[in-house]
Amino acid sequence: MKLSDVGEFGLIERLTDNCVVNALHVVKGIGDDCSVTRGAGDTLRLVTTDMLIERVHFLRDAITPRQLGAKALAVNLSDIAAMGGTALDAYVSIAVPTDLTVAYLDELYLGMKQLARRFAVNILGGDTTASKTDLVINIAVTGEVPSSQILYRHTAKAGDRIYVTGCLGDSGAGLHAILNGGTEGVESLVRRHLEPEPHLSRGRWLAQSGQARAMLDVSDGLTSDLGHICGQSHVGCTVVSSRLPLSPELVAYCDNNGLDALDFALSGGEDYVLLVTGSEELSKEPDLFEVGRVTESLDRILIGTTGEARELLASGWDHMRDDR
Amino acid sequence: MKLSDVGEFGLIERLTDNCVVNALHVVKGIGDDCSVTRGAGDTLRLVTTDMLIERVHFLRDAITPRQLGAKALAVNLSDIAAMGGTALDAYVSIAVPTDLTVAYLDELYLGMKQLARRFAVNILGGDTTASKTDLVINIAVTGEVPSSQILYRHTAKAGDRIYVTGCLGDSGAGLHAILNGGTEGVESLVRRHLEPEPHLSRGRWLAQSGQARAMLDVSDGLTSDLGHICGQSHVGCTVVSSRLPLSPELVAYCDNNGLDALDFALSGGEDYVLLVTGSEELSKEPDLFEVGRVTESLDRILIGTTGEARELLASGWDHMRDDR
Repeated sequence: MKLSDVGEFGLIERLTDNCVVNALHVVKGIGDDCSVTRGAGDTLRLVTTDMLIERVHFLRDAITPRQLGAKALAVNLSDIAAMGGTALDAYVSIAVPTDLTVAYLDELYLGMKQLARRFAVNILGGDTTASKTDLVINIAVTGEVPSSQILYRHTAKAGDRIYVTGCLGDSGAGLHAILNGGTEGVESLVRRHLEPEPHLSRGRWLAQSGQARAMLDVSDGLTSDLGHICGQSHVGCTVVSSRLPLSPELVAYCDNNGLDALDFALSGGEDYVLLVTGSEELSKEPDLFEVGRVTESLDRILIGTTGEARELLASGWDHMRDDR
Repeated sequence: MKLSDVGEFGLIERLTDNCVVNALHVVKGIGDDCSVTRGAGDTLRLVTTDMLIERVHFLRDAITPRQLGAKALAVNLSDIAAMGGTALDAYVSIAVPTDLTVAYLDELYLGMKQLARRFAVNILGGDTTASKTDLVINIAVTGEVPSSQILYRHTAKAGDRIYVTGCLGDSGAGLHAILNGGTEGVESLVRRHLEPEPHLSRGRWLAQSGQARAMLDVSDGLTSDLGHICGQSHVGCTVVSSRLPLSPELVAYCDNNGLDALDFALSGGEDYVLLVTGSEELSKEPDLFEVGRVTESLDRILIGTTGEARELLASGWDHMRDDR
């Protein structure tokens, strides 16, 4: 059987059964943005890990080493944000092709340390080794959250409003511009792709608000990630196209290049905004964009710009498929 | 500046200054087998991470996927053992070349899960992604240890005896046999290289004994690793060649191939036995081999088989050097 037949999510499911043999301290294993274990007192401990591989997640000549170091950490911090947590410590494993210069690595670590410092995150360990061809960075991050405040994927309820904490599709359009060589004039989109901002303080605020019910970060694309919440919460959803927050830069880029901004917003991926379900109260918050509702019916519906309803089809990024 | 000019340890030193920005919960950052942070009550939390890269740490046709999965976890469990800790949870990131079969990955995870189960370790998370050429496995493992029992590298004292928990050099000789195509008849050496056994219960026993002072696991080679203890503890050492525990298989392999067993024992690497300093009391323990003394003089001395003293020169594995 080939990997492409199984796909990324099929593979994860296949490999990760029977993985908990000592359940005493475990609150939540594989299946959310972080694992959750019991910590000191009323605190839960979070752990997440993400690997970036050259030529799969990044091209060495399309991102500066400083941006790459920061991004490798940011995507992990975003997972801590997605549980409502505070990030604590990072562990950085790096495999370095021997043609890389020390100056490149200095810059990479500088980018990582600058971001870490902004969020009071320590770099407490790691592994430094050689690689034959590709640069590989794996970061694991620990965090914590009061047990009464944690936000999972599986806890959405019918009637919840669905919100996102920022514009959708910019990162995907930025990547499109990079791959098609037309980054001039669309620097803000490119920056959204190369310099994602983890929404840690927004995540903490939502966790403390008492108004949020389920949360994750939009890494694969809104449709795919909302699908995780629906699937794990046994609910459906209705998303209203016209309510998706689109930046003027995204709209202009798509207008100028005959592209559909909605496609990027729904399945562009790597936006690293938070997707949260919760009460109507949250609709009063600035920078929180209501995009739809959680429904009792398991259908996942997209209301188009002209009012027609169609099925919201997951088309997020799957690293294992050959057809992307 | 080239990476080979700086070397693995030089690079780590260069990249990892100013990494602690939130010291409140940190007991020990970079520089030991695990990071150490405050946990619940009197417990300290341990985290370690190790990356294995194809063509650097393993050749895909020289190790079965089941052995590879187990080894990737074992080297991390050995780091927990080296602090006297109990391992809790593992986080597995894997980057998979698309030519790999699902059956290969099934076997790899089986090997990992079998070892995890033996030591009551959960697999609680990870990342599964594609790779263009090489298979990459990064594992992070968490653990814990009562704060009164933890064993560091920097706590050796002059007068301590130096012990190891098993034979030295077998793994290096096993690798030598693999690379030179002569594994027939030396299966036990090859197995020591491909199926390292983490000394977790021995590590716990030593931590609880109250007789041990400093500890680490022998991953780079006895000379190099003992050098870490000496450097960080500001002490020296005397190692007695004739006391190094050598397996009959190692001696026979070296005799038959004109090799020096002592070379393998001193700098072969990947033995994953524990190296511990402590009281004379420990010399009564079975399977604990006294190999020398910690000295006040900072010299690192090797007493040869004919009684002559020479400098113990670190010649352990450095992944960044081109000359190995």
